[in-house]
Amino acid sequence: MSDATQPVSLRRFAGTQGDSDEDRVVREEPLEIRVEGASLAVVMRTPGDDAELALGFLVTERVIGKAGDVESVRHCSVVRDPAAEDNVIQVVLAPRVEIDLERLRRNLFASSSCGICGKATIENALATAAPLEDPQRHPAAFFYDLPRRLAERQAAFSETGGLHAAGLFAPDGELLVVREDVGRHNAVDKVVGWALRESRLPLTGHVLMVSGRISYEIVQKALAARIPVLAAVSAPSSLAVDLADSAGMTLVGFLRGRGLNVYGRRERVE
Amino acid sequence: MSDATQPVSLRRFAGTQGDSDEDRVVREEPLEIRVEGASLAVVMRTPGDDAELALGFLVTERVIGKAGDVESVRHCSVVRDPAAEDNVIQVVLAPRVEIDLERLRRNLFASSSCGICGKATIENALATAAPLEDPQRHPAAFFYDLPRRLAERQAAFSETGGLHAAGLFAPDGELLVVREDVGRHNAVDKVVGWALRESRLPLTGHVLMVSGRISYEIVQKALAARIPVLAAVSAPSSLAVDLADSAGMTLVGFLRGRGLNVYGRRERVE
Repeated sequence: MSDATQPVSLRRFAGTQGDSDEDRVVREEPLEIRVEGASLAVVMRTPGDDAELALGFLVTERVIGKAGDVESVRHCSVVRDPAAEDNVIQVVLAPRVEIDLERLRRNLFASSSCGICGKATIENALATAAPLEDPQRHPAAFFYDLPRRLAERQAAFSETGGLHAAGLFAPDGELLVVREDVGRHNAVDKVVGWALRESRLPLTGHVLMVSGRISYEIVQKALAARIPVLAAVSAPSSLAVDLADSAGMTLVGFLRGRGLNVYGRRERVE
Repeated sequence: MSDATQPVSLRRFAGTQGDSDEDRVVREEPLEIRVEGASLAVVMRTPGDDAELALGFLVTERVIGKAGDVESVRHCSVVRDPAAEDNVIQVVLAPRVEIDLERLRRNLFASSSCGICGKATIENALATAAPLEDPQRHPAAFFYDLPRRLAERQAAFSETGGLHAAGLFAPDGELLVVREDVGRHNAVDKVVGWALRESRLPLTGHVLMVSGRISYEIVQKALAARIPVLAAVSAPSSLAVDLADSAGMTLVGFLRGRGLNVYGRRERVE
């Protein structure tokens, strides 16, 4: 029973027979991210690993790039409503880190419907992130085992069936970390925030695997963390493929059984 | 071959054998929604039914409530970059419709990571939408057929495996409309925009079925369109259940085979 879920009452039907029952659903609550005292964004997330989520968010928005850029990150205890105490997180940056709150808010504002995709064109994404020249290669067989290994570590999903997951694999195939969230992008931000804290950025040679689809914003986030290969059980979108093409990133889609499709920089899979 | 997809080159592996191939992926492109000449939001969406998407967006943000509230909606031809012509849509409201752009932008701003969930608390959602007192009842067997009927109408999904769908069923079970999009919330907005144009709002007694999970924002959008029952093959989140409880909405989850779970206002399923 993880903190990521909570009990609900329900009525369960099989055929025409309905019975009252209890079950667990994945938790979804707003998290306000404050930087230098100012409210930057509210994200709907599954509670847990909030500090990593906030840090990963700031990495993929290119505000910070290493653990030393952050002075502190903690839940805020000076909120008016005590029930909201766990839903506000406060990041204090190191003195020399500059942040353009207005620019950042403009980016976030334009991203209303898809997570952090305000930099809505590939040109914009590439303007702040050079294409990847990562020499790491993998045989196709490297990937066939990843979905099972990710699923084994998805604690809350097996309880509720309602969570996205992101898992980070080292160049040698070791599964370093798995994070889950109602939001696919949040799961990725949590992984990136973990890597920042572990002083592992940039993630040269690593493979990020996500449950579900590969959208533009997931590619943009992986690019910010310098991850050369992004894998998923499902399909990429057109803009995800276009950005991968331009940014030198490799997308592995439809990773099922002993088959997969490679998009973008295809020669990384042999 | 629908407009919702586009061809890509890829490398397809089966076991250790890789071959170059072509396939189709779902299109994802930014759409800028302008109201009264002002830029309101940029959403990442699958092109197609853009007018319905913009109108549904304005309904679920409670700017408009009926077809007569809109003077015109059309793609904007006065953009600087001709390639972006299809990615800007311009809504002109009827003279008597008031819009508080600043309030709306504040809501959208706070929603950076989850679509239109800036009104991040249930109290806020209910402040602008009264609880549903919809008397419609359905036997459980009414629902068992809906996933198959929705899937039959998902044209682009069968091509690409990469799209969310939303389908609107009338009280008598007729499937009225199906819309697809890379964004689950966009598919719902497209359905609601369709209903606005057909002068069918409010959607008393109707059932909305979505692919994937039921998140808070989907419940909030259904509530704005006054849809009493929301169904999905997968799980609801905690906040989705909480809002359904407070708003008198019925959630049908885990709709698989001849079984389902009912959350929220449970007596609508018998």
